[in-house]
Amino acid sequence: MASEQQVVVKNPVTLCKYSKRVSLKTIVGSSDGGLELAGKRVVIGGWVKSSNEAALPAQEVGGGGSAAAVVTVGSKDVGCVEILPFFRSLMKALGGSQQQHHPSRGKLDSGVPKMPPTAVLQVSDGSCVATLQVRVDSSIWRPSEIMPTGTCIVVKGTLQQPAVKENKHAIELKVEKVIHVGAVDQDKYPLSKIRLPLEFLRDFPHFRPRTTTVASVTRIRNAFTQAAHTFFMNNGFLYVQLPVITTTDCEGLSEKFQVTTLLRKELKKEVISTGDSVRVSLETVKASIEDKNKLVEELKIKSEINKEKLISALQDLCNAYELAAQLEAREKANKSGTLVITERVDFSDDFFSHQTYLTVSGRLHLESYACALGNVYSFGPRFRAEKPDSKKQVAEMWMIELEMAFSQLEDAMKCAEDFLKFVCEWAIEKCSDDLKFLSKRADQTIIDRLQSMVSSSFERVTYAEAVDVLKQVKDKKFEKQIEWGVPLSEEHERYAYGGDEIYKSPVIIHNYLKELKPFYVRLNDDGRTVAAFDVVVPKAGTLIRGSQNEERFSVLNTRIKEQSLPKKQYEWYLDLRRHGTITHSGFSLMFDLLVLYATDLIDVRDVIPFPRSHGKANN
Amino acid sequence: MASEQQVVVKNPVTLCKYSKRVSLKTIVGSSDGGLELAGKRVVIGGWVKSSNEAALPAQEVGGGGSAAAVVTVGSKDVGCVEILPFFRSLMKALGGSQQQHHPSRGKLDSGVPKMPPTAVLQVSDGSCVATLQVRVDSSIWRPSEIMPTGTCIVVKGTLQQPAVKENKHAIELKVEKVIHVGAVDQDKYPLSKIRLPLEFLRDFPHFRPRTTTVASVTRIRNAFTQAAHTFFMNNGFLYVQLPVITTTDCEGLSEKFQVTTLLRKELKKEVISTGDSVRVSLETVKASIEDKNKLVEELKIKSEINKEKLISALQDLCNAYELAAQLEAREKANKSGTLVITERVDFSDDFFSHQTYLTVSGRLHLESYACALGNVYSFGPRFRAEKPDSKKQVAEMWMIELEMAFSQLEDAMKCAEDFLKFVCEWAIEKCSDDLKFLSKRADQTIIDRLQSMVSSSFERVTYAEAVDVLKQVKDKKFEKQIEWGVPLSEEHERYAYGGDEIYKSPVIIHNYLKELKPFYVRLNDDGRTVAAFDVVVPKAGTLIRGSQNEERFSVLNTRIKEQSLPKKQYEWYLDLRRHGTITHSGFSLMFDLLVLYATDLIDVRDVIPFPRSHGKANN
Repeated sequence: MASEQQVVVKNPVTLCKYSKRVSLKTIVGSSDGGLELAGKRVVIGGWVKSSNEAALPAQEVGGGGSAAAVVTVGSKDVGCVEILPFFRSLMKALGGSQQQHHPSRGKLDSGVPKMPPTAVLQVSDGSCVATLQVRVDSSIWRPSEIMPTGTCIVVKGTLQQPAVKENKHAIELKVEKVIHVGAVDQDKYPLSKIRLPLEFLRDFPHFRPRTTTVASVTRIRNAFTQAAHTFFMNNGFLYVQLPVITTTDCEGLSEKFQVTTLLRKELKKEVISTGDSVRVSLETVKASIEDKNKLVEELKIKSEINKEKLISALQDLCNAYELAAQLEAREKANKSGTLVITERVDFSDDFFSHQTYLTVSGRLHLESYACALGNVYSFGPRFRAEKPDSKKQVAEMWMIELEMAFSQLEDAMKCAEDFLKFVCEWAIEKCSDDLKFLSKRADQTIIDRLQSMVSSSFERVTYAEAVDVLKQVKDKKFEKQIEWGVPLSEEHERYAYGGDEIYKSPVIIHNYLKELKPFYVRLNDDGRTVAAFDVVVPKAGTLIRGSQNEERFSVLNTRIKEQSLPKKQYEWYLDLRRHGTITHSGFSLMFDLLVLYATDLIDVRDVIPFPRSHGKANN
Repeated sequence: MASEQQVVVKNPVTLCKYSKRVSLKTIVGSSDGGLELAGKRVVIGGWVKSSNEAALPAQEVGGGGSAAAVVTVGSKDVGCVEILPFFRSLMKALGGSQQQHHPSRGKLDSGVPKMPPTAVLQVSDGSCVATLQVRVDSSIWRPSEIMPTGTCIVVKGTLQQPAVKENKHAIELKVEKVIHVGAVDQDKYPLSKIRLPLEFLRDFPHFRPRTTTVASVTRIRNAFTQAAHTFFMNNGFLYVQLPVITTTDCEGLSEKFQVTTLLRKELKKEVISTGDSVRVSLETVKASIEDKNKLVEELKIKSEINKEKLISALQDLCNAYELAAQLEAREKANKSGTLVITERVDFSDDFFSHQTYLTVSGRLHLESYACALGNVYSFGPRFRAEKPDSKKQVAEMWMIELEMAFSQLEDAMKCAEDFLKFVCEWAIEKCSDDLKFLSKRADQTIIDRLQSMVSSSFERVTYAEAVDVLKQVKDKKFEKQIEWGVPLSEEHERYAYGGDEIYKSPVIIHNYLKELKPFYVRLNDDGRTVAAFDVVVPKAGTLIRGSQNEERFSVLNTRIKEQSLPKKQYEWYLDLRRHGTITHSGFSLMFDLLVLYATDLIDVRDVIPFPRSHGKANN
């Protein structure tokens, strides 16, 4: 062990703000891997990602650490901790192999004298992809207490070139004092040295960020967030905090979550009464009504696709109701028994005295600020109470929305393109290590893909052209045949952009058929198409949906009527056309999908810190 | 009028990004008020804030505009638009005087020949406090169409020194072409040239940002938002988007909103029954069912043509059946003398299969990211379903939360102080005009107050010291007597900090009695106090609540038990102590209160774009 006198202590390394430690990025994040910091004394903190025991040859113990032999326990893939029973079975199910060695119980290669071992830890503090190699001699701390994956340590020591020459680490920390050990309950800790499947990690959102993958995803999310705010700051946009609780339905189509304080009271009422009369035949019909109702709800979500099915389901439901009514009448004639039914919900008792929802989109609200302040944006959570039909949707997702007064479709498309290029360039610059790490999963380096987004000029096609191009495809049979009037589905997008079959760069599809877009999008002069656009990128599909919104009162009013929307709800929105109307355009960017695109992961739940999906909202 | 040849056209002024106009800030926001831009030709857009008519003396009409006489119609306080009936009565109630002149009907001062008048408009586009004076000759556009407050115009013209010398404007725009006019329905438009009470404006959140006050508030909010993100970026914090929907109760005390999809069906019933608790008779509904059936049959014949209509008719019919069934049941229940009671809420049918809430605070979730990545923060909406007991609380408020691993109480207090200084300095730099404008309402200039926040050192006192100091107050009788163990209330804070009676600068009160703070705050060695702190500032009161959180499993576990909290809900939170625990601290900043503090307004609803308060969530 090098004595303190031998170490040349230079100026201390910059401390991490608000904690008396040095961020590991300051050490191993530099281009030389921290080599120039050799000799400096630092305090660091972090979590053990993996560990080995190194037994120093007898003559080396206590001396300079230049020729120690690292003895790795077990094979490369073996975890240092006891594997949890449920993870063990999961791995078995997944076909993974398991050898269970515990380092303190492992056998050292023969030939090396059994000397007091040294713990060699790979430690991360989340500041960068690279870990710092930390060497703790057993004379300083018992190896078995600090070696398990997930242990938190705060240690003081001196940076030095590794005791054993190897390529991975330019520098390691030779510990002189252990300041803190946050132990791990190895029987219960879900993480290990082994890379775990993302599906498995979803059950542990509170531990996920300790994995390299989710840590990288988080840093990339952060970079995009910072880039977004910087873009808007540079371009004179004002940030507006829009409400999550709302009475306005932005689209008139999506299923919404209700916000209420009523359910609590009803639970109390339930305690008082338990009565429930059973009526077999009528109940059966009623149950079938519920099923039919569900089917109708499901079909409505895809009503654009299959109106025939929806019509037949609705007809079916009506018939069931009729039958139930008949049965009810018959029964009434026979009996005069009691019946317990659900009271109509009286929203005047609710917190806001009327029904409120979680917002689906903030664009309508944003318009009112644009029509006063010019360029505005928002960045917040948006909600849909729908069972997702793809891995790109959960109930709560973050969106960036912007709205610009005195602007038209062309301006919004230009802004969307500039925005994507800006944030991707930012991510490349700030997160190159993370992107390189995640590229190991991908078919090409993610950086190349982002770089091509930055340098390419987005192609622009009309919806009509996009349909034509897809209709001419001969070598591929689509599940859903593409037709004029049919929305482009994921499979169409995948074909057109995914494999670069048709388009080599991100594409902006614009001028959609009016039936395919919400009521507020501006009607084009042809009376059939509207000034909407989607930005579609390879793999992730549609990242941005934008439009020039209808500024003409009479046209907007007609569109609201045509779609049988509750006009009263939109009076305030119509007001913006009644008084001082102006052309304006904007877009919504699905932020989580942007992160999905840049990380090349598949399921959006893996890039959202605490995802909320159908049937699942833990924590 | 100056001919085009006479005007020296210099290089065009920088265009506003994504719209073919020049932002007014570019013109009137410069230190010389835009004087150096004289002679430049620009397109601008904005909303008319007020207007006058100027009649040019006969000999000047059509000539150079240097000696025109501005003729102001009516007195200084007279609005240019017809005042709404309800506003008229409001103003009467408030004691305001009203004279109703309409410029086009107003009489010009005698002695000036009645020549075609010129409209002189004060136009704002929200980019800055100052308005641009815009002069539109009647030969170009009818004055009466563009003069009403709230009219949106896009015009092209040449910047010139004002036709009439006056102090207010260094430059004005002489319009050559009117590109767009978004008229105002004067009978219905709520805003006017007169400054309106903030209470009145709350009913028009979609128009409020067109007032100078709310526009300034929005720009200051924006500056604080940008400053916050910049502070965190500079100090190595990662942004984490925390969920709004949650099952974890951060404090165990606050009333929460429930998130559900269970009330959906009841909503549909409401729509059919034409709402407002009007009881529809069973007969009426049965009759409507017949009608609806007929309609469906008719539509089926031409179903190819209009599927949408058929779907909506069928849905309508189903709903009617459902209502009929419900009414039938209710009638039956009533007849037989039984009470109609509410059915038990079965959350397994709910979207997430269990009960979920809107989050009260994100700090617990944030901890899991801090205990992996170091310094993290969030910025999002938080919710309390409580009737507010002050003007500083509404149901939905935005908070900035941060959490730092490897840090202690002292670090969080330092960070809180640095943060406030940084964002206040930023606001002073970026929003000086807005702060000056808002200072007109305040007792001192707001900038001085913010400046003293930036330059002062925050005083630190323990809770015990704060109580002692307040107990020694003799000249003031508090409504609630201060005692050891009693939380400091607004009146105590107001006394101590509001009038600078005791403390001259922001104060950090720390080490509260444990009963006064949530269960997760770290217990001090005395066993009676906890490592919590509040940052209290003059007028706004507590802006920040922070703490070092309990990292010791056994202590935390005991605290959960002591407070009889549902332990199961906190298992994941306890996990962070089971595995790799570490000291950590952080705080929550009530963002809306920071804006309230900096704008010197009184009611938080006036600084939130769309406030959600008890009984009120419009739009």
